[in-house]
Order: sequence, then structure tokens, then C-alpha cells
Amino acid sequence: MSTPEETSAEDAAWGEVTPEAARRLLVAAVDAFAERGYHATTTRDIAGRAGMSPAALYIHYKTKEELLHRISKIGHDRALYLLEAEADRDGTAAERLAGAVRSFVRWHAERHTTARVVQYELDALGPEHRTEIVELRRRSDAVVRRIISEGVRAGEFDVPDIPGTTLAVLSLCIDVARWFNAQGSRTPDEVGALYADLVLRMVGAPQRSQGPGVAQQ
Amino acid sequence: MSTPEETSAEDAAWGEVTPEAARRLLVAAVDAFAERGYHATTTRDIAGRAGMSPAALYIHYKTKEELLHRISKIGHDRALYLLEAEADRDGTAAERLAGAVRSFVRWHAERHTTARVVQYELDALGPEHRTEIVELRRRSDAVVRRIISEGVRAGEFDVPDIPGTTLAVLSLCIDVARWFNAQGSRTPDEVGALYADLVLRMVGAPQRSQGPGVAQQ
Repeated sequence: MSTPEETSAEDAAWGEVTPEAARRLLVAAVDAFAERGYHATTTRDIAGRAGMSPAALYIHYKTKEELLHRISKIGHDRALYLLEAEADRDGTAAERLAGAVRSFVRWHAERHTTARVVQYELDALGPEHRTEIVELRRRSDAVVRRIISEGVRAGEFDVPDIPGTTLAVLSLCIDVARWFNAQGSRTPDEVGALYADLVLRMVGAPQRSQGPGVAQQ
Repeated sequence: MSTPEETSAEDAAWGEVTPEAARRLLVAAVDAFAERGYHATTTRDIAGRAGMSPAALYIHYKTKEELLHRISKIGHDRALYLLEAEADRDGTAAERLAGAVRSFVRWHAERHTTARVVQYELDALGPEHRTEIVELRRRSDAVVRRIISEGVRAGEFDVPDIPGTTLAVLSLCIDVARWFNAQGSRTPDEVGALYADLVLRMVGAPQRSQGPGVAQQ
């Protein structure tokens, strides 16, 4: 499913996971879950993809669900970190919202295989792990809602439905993971720039000129 | 995964499928694929959910892939039909784009279980079926692009990147199937109305007043 270039881009996301064998197993699990789905994947498949024995897998992960939880936790932590870093910068609400969208979109494009697993296999998490992940998602939502609310209060944005617009902005960015194709015509940065512009329009922020004949103000 | 109310809403989508046993098997396949994924589901699982024997299933469908193809074809035909019906109405480009978004969103909200299968299991289709479905998707994309282009030519819309904006509009609507929850606080019609407003903003269409203090013109 993923090309060698894509796989190495995905690999880079797991730098924090040690030892190396545990990292290799996570990368193998992401590929297997993305290709066949969580329920059709066995721990034996994952160990095989990582060039390891099932017994070696159990040293690092007790269950298949533990692998999914680890992937989901790292993915959601990263998404929240990226959003918070942009939200906490100096600048207008429009600059911070555009930065958050660019950064969040780039992550979902570059790590689209991981992001698909993280987004589509939530129901396979155990109850406790699911509660923890839902809380991380609630915090990501709150970061975006805060920037939009600040923009409205500052008179920069015109947003009749702040929770609904927050939901739509995050949904638009997350769905990049579904359609993004590393062999397609747009780079992650280009999609990020396009989406930052579209999101500023969604919140009614005055647009900068985008070329002859299309300036809005 | 789906509640009884949801299941009966999904059932209604398959009215065109006859005989009744073939329809019952499609509904069972949608539920099984949505719950466990295509690769983790067997034809035996599907027959069992429909209260039928594996032999009875094979009278109607030769393979599991044939079931997925039938689901995907009906779903994509329906999505294209809804978009074309709105695109071909009388009215301004803004009215037609808003109508297309409302209708497309409502379908993805009401039929979210079916839509998830249709959207997430494309890779499991055989090459010929995949080519057929990709062509239907290309036609849906072309319908939305045509409305946006007409709006730009008529001076109603201000869109620097028509293909990119078309992609984003469809993506925003499709992702409703991922997050929509029939027990949530918004009805399919309410999401459709919110999204029609957001999409008109994305294409730079002048907004109608949405209440005191937030009118843009």
C-alpha cells in the first residue's frame, strides 16, 4: 500500500519510541492495520512484517490493542502539540489559525498512513484507552475553538456558530489523510497553504490579495 | 455498532435491490464491513447476520468483493445523482452550490455507516470495479467543479484555485460520515445548513445576514 519513500516518511514519526525493536513493531503495525484493517491483522502478521518472532513481539507489547493504543496516543499527542504550538505564538488570530491549519494539514498529509489508522480504528480501542484518546481529541478541539473565539472577540472573524465551525475546520484537515496521495499533484505544504486560505474564508477573515482580479480587499 | 434506528435508516437506502434476500445480504454486509472491516469479514459472517446459509448467499453474490462492489456502486451512483439534481436546477451558482452541499451532507450523515464502507474500502475493490468507481467519483468532482466555475464566470464567486477548492468542498462533506453521530446534538439537516454556509464562504460568495451583528453585507 505505501511506497518505500512513504514508509520512510512514516518511520520518522516514531523517533521517540525505544528500543529500536519496539519502534520497528509499531511501524509494522501501522502498515498492517492500514492495509488490512485492525481486526484482520494478527500479532503474528505484525511480528512477521517486522522480521521478528511472535515471542519477540510479546516482550514489547502484551496485546494487539496495546500496539493500536500506542500508535493512537503518539498520533494524537503529536496533533495536539502541533495545534498548541501554533495557538500559543504571538500574532493575530488569523495568523495563528492559518499556522495551526498549515501544520495540522501537513502532518495529516505526510503521515497519512498513520493518520488513517489513528482516525479510523478508534472503535477498536479498549474502553480506558478510548476515554484517554477522546480526551486528547477534546483538547485539540478546544485549542482551535479558542483561536476562533479570540478572533471573534477581536473583531477579526465573523463566525455565527463557533463549535460547528471548529468541528468543520478540524474535519476538513483530518480528511486530508483519506485522499492525500504522495504521487499526486500537490505537496503537503501546498495543501496546507490552500487549506489555510479556505479556513480563513470559513471564519470570515478579510483575505489578503491572491493575485490580479481576485483580491477581496 | 449501529442502533436499531440507524439500521432502519440505512436499510431504506437499498430499496432498488431485489429480491428481498439480496437486499438483506447487502444490509448485513454493510454492517459487518463497518464493524470489523472488509478483510476481517467472511461471507459466512454476512450470511449469518442476514439469517441465511452461506449457500443461500452464493445464489445472489459469487464473492465478497461482489457485495462490496454492489454497495460501492449504489452509494456512488446515489451521491452523483444528488449532486447532479442540484447542479441542474434553476438558480444562481450560490443557490445550486448550497443545495448540492446540503443534499450531499445529508446523505453522508443519514447513511454514515454505508458511506464509511463506500469511502474507506475502495482499495479492496478488484481492478475493474475500482476503475468504474473512480470514474463515478471523477464525475461527482466534475459536477461540483462546474457549479464553482459557473459562479466564478458569473462574478458570484471569488476562487483562486478551482480544482483545489472543489476537492476541499467534497472532502469536507464526505468526512461527515466519519464523525456524524445520530445521538449527537446536530441533525443531518442542521449539519447540511451549517456546511452550505461554510462552503459559500469558501468560494467567496457574499453572505446573507445571519442575525444581528454578524451580517457581512
